Amino acid sequence: MMRARVSGRVWSTRHVGTLPTGALLEVETEAGARLIAFDPLGCAEGEAVLITQGSVAASYFPETSVPIDALIVGSIDEQSTKRQ
Amino acid sequence: MMRARVSGRVWSTRHVGTLPTGALLEVETEAGARLIAFDPLGCAEGEAVLITQGSVAASYFPETSVPIDALIVGSIDEQSTKRQ
Amino acid sequence: MMRARVSGRVWSTRHVGTLPTGALLEVETEAGARLIAFDPLGCAEGEAVLITQGSVAASYFPETSVPIDALIVGSIDEQSTKRQ
Amino acid sequence: MMRARVSGRVWSTRHVGTLPTGALLEVETEAGARLIAFDPLGCAEGEAVLITQGSVAASYFPETSVPIDALIVGSIDEQSTKRQ
Amino acid sequence: MMRARVSGRVWSTRHVGTLPTGALLEVETEAGARLIAFDPLGCAEGEAVLITQGSVAASYFPETSVPIDALIVGSIDEQSTKRQ
Repeated sequence: MMRARVSGRVWSTRHVGTLPTGALLEVETEAGARLIAFDPLGCAEGEAVLITQGSVAASYFPETSVPIDALIVGSIDEQSTKRQ
Repeated sequence: MMRARVSGRVWSTRHVGTLPTGALLEVETEAGARLIAFDPLGCAEGEAVLITQGSVAASYFPETSVPIDALIVGSIDEQSTKRQ
Repeated sequence: MMRARVSGRVWSTRHVGTLPTGALLEVETEAGARLIAFDPLGCAEGEAVLITQGSVAASYFPETSVPIDALIVGSIDEQSTKRQ
Repeated sequence: MMRARVSGRVWSTRHVGTLPTGALLEVETEAGARLIAFDPLGCAEGEAVLITQGSVAASYFPETSVPIDALIVGSIDEQSTKRQ
Repeated sequence: MMRARVSGRVWSTRHVGTLPTGALLEVETEAGARLIAFDPLGCAEGEAVLITQGSVAASYFPETSVPIDALIVGSIDEQSTKRQ
């Protein structure tokens, strides 16, 4: 997974029928890459999140053949992520 | 997923039999990478699109073993993708 | 797989229901990339570990559809990893 | 997929038993990366080709568990790949 | 696949139970990246090898859920890999 921060949202009115309904958030990773991830948690702009990528992101959905390759799997507790 | 913009199209007369019939568009990602993605939506040159990659791109097709690793899943509504 | 070193830990109180219970460690790869990996071994800060990525990381878990794309598969024996 | 150009060929006499019989071509992508891809089409040195990567490359083969992660899926029609 | 050269070996006494028994070699790709790959062929330090990555590397093993994402699939015949 990667740490990222929510930086925006995209809307797509014209899309393939298998794209699940829900928020598609723009996130920026620590390394500066920008991804669009499905958000099942209702995250806010600026929130620190944990992103999973690839086919395991699609396996989150009960339907087969969901074309999602990036998923927010958690909101990171900011005050507790100090070094161990 | 990644944001990208349609920048061209490729044709391949000689191809493997399992390549699905349809448009193969060249897209350029925000980071400047160029990919060839299958387009099920009829997108135009210059259009902003959402790209999914890897095995979930192939799962879009009803056939098994389709050798597609990049798919346009939506056209991005340009006026609405402001920051949240 | 990639060599990495444990550099921290993250906590996520608000997460998807399919995220397995256990430690999510921050690791830094030899190339300097930072990942968050699930740790089934109880590794410590500074420990040298072996990371596997992608869908095979999720297949470690008996449940299907676990959204984990990075797993610590071993602790590297440091004194023995000399050149052959 | 990615555009690439055939730049060489490799031979491997000592290999795992599940490696399919056929040509393994060296290709160079537009970004300058060099990959070794399985060629089911009989492409020539210098030919422009379309490469697919990851598990969908292996699904081209009727056998399960073929360890191929890059496949030439088409030869690009060079004169026709003008901008749209 | 990628060309790489064997540059070392790692040992991991403490590892997950599903890690297969066998050699884990450090290889360096042409682009300079260092990976740890499972070696079913008994390759030697300095040997030129062909590496496959991702879930197809794990499918080499008869067991399901093997957490291996990089596999040596062949030793490259060095004198024969001239340009075509």
